[in-house]
Amino acid sequence: MRTQVAIIGAGPAGLLLGQLLHKAGIDNVILERQSGEYVLGRIRAGILEQVTVDLMVEAGIGQRLHREGIVHHAIELVFKGERHPIDVTGLTGGKVVTAYGQTELTRDLMDARRDEGLTTVYEAHDVSLHGFDGDQPVVRYRHEGREHELQCDFIAGCDGFHGVSRATVKEHVTEYEKVYPFGWLGVLADVPPVSPHAIVYGNSERGFSLCSMRSLTRSRYYVQCPLDDKVEDWSDDRFWDELRRRVDPHLADRIVTGPSIEKSIAPLRSFVAEPMRFGRLFLAGDAAHIVPPTGAKGLNLAASDVKYLSAAFIEHYRERSAAGLHHYSEHALKRVWKAERFSWWMTTLMHRFPDMGAFNQKLQESELEYLVHSRAASTALAENYVGLPL
Amino acid sequence: MRTQVAIIGAGPAGLLLGQLLHKAGIDNVILERQSGEYVLGRIRAGILEQVTVDLMVEAGIGQRLHREGIVHHAIELVFKGERHPIDVTGLTGGKVVTAYGQTELTRDLMDARRDEGLTTVYEAHDVSLHGFDGDQPVVRYRHEGREHELQCDFIAGCDGFHGVSRATVKEHVTEYEKVYPFGWLGVLADVPPVSPHAIVYGNSERGFSLCSMRSLTRSRYYVQCPLDDKVEDWSDDRFWDELRRRVDPHLADRIVTGPSIEKSIAPLRSFVAEPMRFGRLFLAGDAAHIVPPTGAKGLNLAASDVKYLSAAFIEHYRERSAAGLHHYSEHALKRVWKAERFSWWMTTLMHRFPDMGAFNQKLQESELEYLVHSRAASTALAENYVGLPL
Repeated sequence: MRTQVAIIGAGPAGLLLGQLLHKAGIDNVILERQSGEYVLGRIRAGILEQVTVDLMVEAGIGQRLHREGIVHHAIELVFKGERHPIDVTGLTGGKVVTAYGQTELTRDLMDARRDEGLTTVYEAHDVSLHGFDGDQPVVRYRHEGREHELQCDFIAGCDGFHGVSRATVKEHVTEYEKVYPFGWLGVLADVPPVSPHAIVYGNSERGFSLCSMRSLTRSRYYVQCPLDDKVEDWSDDRFWDELRRRVDPHLADRIVTGPSIEKSIAPLRSFVAEPMRFGRLFLAGDAAHIVPPTGAKGLNLAASDVKYLSAAFIEHYRERSAAGLHHYSEHALKRVWKAERFSWWMTTLMHRFPDMGAFNQKLQESELEYLVHSRAASTALAENYVGLPL
Repeated sequence: MRTQVAIIGAGPAGLLLGQLLHKAGIDNVILERQSGEYVLGRIRAGILEQVTVDLMVEAGIGQRLHREGIVHHAIELVFKGERHPIDVTGLTGGKVVTAYGQTELTRDLMDARRDEGLTTVYEAHDVSLHGFDGDQPVVRYRHEGREHELQCDFIAGCDGFHGVSRATVKEHVTEYEKVYPFGWLGVLADVPPVSPHAIVYGNSERGFSLCSMRSLTRSRYYVQCPLDDKVEDWSDDRFWDELRRRVDPHLADRIVTGPSIEKSIAPLRSFVAEPMRFGRLFLAGDAAHIVPPTGAKGLNLAASDVKYLSAAFIEHYRERSAAGLHHYSEHALKRVWKAERFSWWMTTLMHRFPDMGAFNQKLQESELEYLVHSRAASTALAENYVGLPL
């Protein structure tokens, strides 16, 4: 088999890249280690920057997102038991974020890919990347018991943090990492969100909490928990009790509870691999960088990588110019590091750290006080939250 | 001897408080452990917020400050060898800071106090504070070999970090502290400042540097150094060489060098003692809090404490209202913690930490990049630099 761009991974990054390339007349094949059902079953992010929404529209699949996505104009910060709205839209000259589950976005992309008849090989095992240092890259993999070879011009590594793409070049990568001393316990439940108009970020002496949503009938809530907690330690009742104690009393009274349809504990990590290009292999999304979820930047960074990378491929095939490909890593990393900084900052601001000590605790309170009372500081938060310019 | 307010310490906080109280007809006596010459010999801060300048004018001693102080409209941040101006005045709707040495300000205050014939007891030894829990505080001290007793209504502890005031109440104080793993080597020299219009803050791989000034003929420069360095390790030549290597090449070429007239190494510390009131004893300035000098906030915080405290005493004597005294600690600490946050942030942003690691180093660079390119983030810096509202 031969294609122009071999895409490793059928998550949002790979699917979005495939769709954008196809729209531009560039042939591509996606290889995915898991099944389509497995990919769709992963519960992940749900807040889209305008850049990401625009890219979905550009890919021709913005209809359902526009219909079902819930536009947010504000976030709220809760600390010392009080809520403080941040008018994100007012502070950024009209920008918004859209609540739309990653699962839904992935489903839209999968449906579009299927409708266009594009090739996605699910359950492609033992994927290995070759020849990307030269002119004729090859991807080898096993599918339904047989060995296959995919010849291509370029390889796009969109296969996430644990994927083969970065692992293949690990000797040439500089890694930057920070691991946080806590996790997020997340619950998905088919109950109306307590705050349908604004994501609520809570800092309490019991730890961080987050009230978000996937739709007007599906809520996504989180509480910070110790890393060694097990999901089994957390009954639904215990979760709802804990969440109520971490928000302001007025909000707590209005939380509608119900059985969890998903419950999991995720660690928080900051990670960047540099560079993001190795000859004809390009990394995008989680394959190259991870942010803690506090700033809702993970999916959006994947989308901006894909924006740069698709533009670079299109420039290559249409204009025979290598400039975009040449600058891809530099351009993408510039935005990545800004989002890494924001995600680290917001994580540090909102969580209780086991070892933070009294002085840092007072600094955190002082920063929150300053933040909600300073238009400049609120604007800095807002402009990062909606996404810095590409 | 009897007075209304006994002031411990003849630094800027004590002298300014004494002057403001005198203007309002409130009798006060200052006790100072050192000689007047010693106090004047201390080389300290040199950047005044407008709040501080206004307070000097209110105290009736703004003439020389207005004549000789150098108004700054900008600061500059140097990193990766490039200078980035921050238009502090433009970003804050017209606010400025004024370069005027603490030594000069102290001299103006001493001169005014002498001219008014107010009592300052220098070389007052073994000062001890009594009875401030009740209605009749007494300060005992030894002067020229004899024991004295000063009866008063209130005691104002303006005697700095190592003074007797906070030490007296140490069992009732909660202390918050952070010590930084480096010091500042400072040089004072009678050479024209390299940047007469803007303080220059430098972040380089060799460490922090600061180019500031006391006048158009007297410069004050600093470089970050290891805490265990000794002044004797640093010849003037070594200092000038190091400073040049830490700023951008264009600036380095223009630094005028000359013999140091003062050279010292100071540790950097963040410290807050809570509360700032104990019955009839009130702490102000360094007696209650220390900031690392990076944000130029130490003297200005002392001034805002004095603003709150003098207003509270005036309210007490004129209106027989205890409200100001009652709220003093809370009001002062609110501003203190905001300045502590800013000073910590700016220190963290501009210095190399021995243990910062590769990820934090990249975060720092990313934050600097973001800061100088975001109007919101620059404004947040600027509004803190000129001083948050009282």
